[in-house]
Amino acid sequence: MKLTRLEEKNLIEAIKQEFLESNKAVPVGLGDDAAVIKAGDTDLIVTKDLLIEDVHFVFSYHPARLLGKKSLNVNISDIAAMGGMPMYALLGLGLPERTDLEWISDFFAGLKSATRENGIALVGGDISRAKKIIISVTLIGEGKNIIRRSGAKPGHVLFVSGTLGDARQGLLLLKRGVRLGETKYADKLLKAFLDPTPPVQLGQELSRRKLVSAMIDISDGLSIDLGHICEESGCGAEVFLERLPLSPELCLLQRKRLAFALRGGEDYQLLFSVPEKKIRSLSELQEKYRITPIGRIISDPGLYVIDKKGRRKKTEIKGWHHFRKRVNRIESCE
Amino acid sequence: MKLTRLEEKNLIEAIKQEFLESNKAVPVGLGDDAAVIKAGDTDLIVTKDLLIEDVHFVFSYHPARLLGKKSLNVNISDIAAMGGMPMYALLGLGLPERTDLEWISDFFAGLKSATRENGIALVGGDISRAKKIIISVTLIGEGKNIIRRSGAKPGHVLFVSGTLGDARQGLLLLKRGVRLGETKYADKLLKAFLDPTPPVQLGQELSRRKLVSAMIDISDGLSIDLGHICEESGCGAEVFLERLPLSPELCLLQRKRLAFALRGGEDYQLLFSVPEKKIRSLSELQEKYRITPIGRIISDPGLYVIDKKGRRKKTEIKGWHHFRKRVNRIESCE
Repeated sequence: MKLTRLEEKNLIEAIKQEFLESNKAVPVGLGDDAAVIKAGDTDLIVTKDLLIEDVHFVFSYHPARLLGKKSLNVNISDIAAMGGMPMYALLGLGLPERTDLEWISDFFAGLKSATRENGIALVGGDISRAKKIIISVTLIGEGKNIIRRSGAKPGHVLFVSGTLGDARQGLLLLKRGVRLGETKYADKLLKAFLDPTPPVQLGQELSRRKLVSAMIDISDGLSIDLGHICEESGCGAEVFLERLPLSPELCLLQRKRLAFALRGGEDYQLLFSVPEKKIRSLSELQEKYRITPIGRIISDPGLYVIDKKGRRKKTEIKGWHHFRKRVNRIESCE
Repeated sequence: MKLTRLEEKNLIEAIKQEFLESNKAVPVGLGDDAAVIKAGDTDLIVTKDLLIEDVHFVFSYHPARLLGKKSLNVNISDIAAMGGMPMYALLGLGLPERTDLEWISDFFAGLKSATRENGIALVGGDISRAKKIIISVTLIGEGKNIIRRSGAKPGHVLFVSGTLGDARQGLLLLKRGVRLGETKYADKLLKAFLDPTPPVQLGQELSRRKLVSAMIDISDGLSIDLGHICEESGCGAEVFLERLPLSPELCLLQRKRLAFALRGGEDYQLLFSVPEKKIRSLSELQEKYRITPIGRIISDPGLYVIDKKGRRKKTEIKGWHHFRKRVNRIESCE
């Protein structure tokens, strides 16, 4: 059986089972946004993401500086989703012979700006030759009230930060030849894809104030990532389509904007569930951050979408299609 | 300027300088075997290594099970070189479509055997599609008396563990079509390359007993890695060629065995310097481990080799040629 025909969810499940025994002492192991390990009394949050040329990014689309930033920011997003504070980064970098010094210099300038913005120290890594550019960042953070995917309960209200679907539209524009600096409205969409900035402060405030029961970052698309929360929490969810926060730019350009918001991916926003009694406290944060209630957790283990006419439709909860989806994102996004 | 013509040492140096400011609070940052970070009162040792198909390994040479083991063991080697205890691993894996389930299953079986042997928990990671196989392991360990590269002083005696040059000869045999299971003496050499087992217990004992002043793992070859110790310690070294520990198998097969031992790479043995007054205590360890004195630290900042006739010859201290050398190792090793 080849990997294309393999159900990746099963692969990840098999790996989890295989390594379960050795992981008994680990607070959070395989299967959350990041792993949590104990170091003395400190809870450390550890995550790593591979960015591979032509799978996760296209060389000609992505300015080196923004790629350097994004390679750190996608990892920051995982730590933000647990309410943690990113602290130390390691970089594995595979570079083809064709890579010129200017590109390398720009890449590191972008990486540095993201470390500086977030108070992160780059402490180690490995550079090697490769046929395609490979960026492997490991990020280590600390967390006090670590928020997992598994605490959502029926009745809890679902919120998302920012707007959804912009990154997918940005990628679509890139594929059509649009580049940064041409028009303002396109720039906003292009930047959503090329230069995402995860709301790490929001994640930390939600954690410090203990306002949320479950949280995840939306990297694989709202429906898949909401599916993760439902699966880990043993519940379902309903989402009001007309409440999905959309940017005016996406609305202007994309007729399928709701599909983009539901399944676009690469948003790097936060999706979280809030117990009803804590919603008043949350409203204070709404002055500082764009946070939108989009639905609620239900006991029926399914994902339902409700359209503007009130019609309720069951949608399949998408599983862990990371592998296939990420590829699609570059290679066959409409 | 393209990367082939770039002095990689300068690149690493530039990166170190660029990120120096953000790293002030980090006990050991860029430029040792691994980074050391503080988590509460605990010193954590963090390292990561990329293994890329056709750069660091060749698919047809490397049984999946041994590749799974090696991908963890090369990282364990870095932590062993600081006297630490490996604890948590994260795996980033890029797999081509052609990869079949049996290969994946074997790879994870090998990885698991290495985690079990060393009491390591696999806590997280990322799987993605890729054109070539990419293995990116991050390993986190703990250390009490962390041994750096920088503590060697003139007069300290240099020791290595195990034998040197076998892995290079093993790779050479693989390139000539020799495979595991054909002859016993070839198997030993092939295994040195395909299935290295770093002496992690030795590293920990040396650290616990505070016997050594500087230590490094020999991954890039004795002369380069000794060069690192000299550079970081601000000294030089002399090596007695006839004392280099060679396996009978290497001696039998390779006329250039001394060159292989000096510059072979991938040995994953430990190289360390010992103050003279501690050599008596070290001798207790010699019953348990193969440890060989091969030379000593001198104040003159150069690397000298002394042949069996007592002729002393200066050798250029090889810098950080990781990048080019690793490529050579696969593509143009004699």
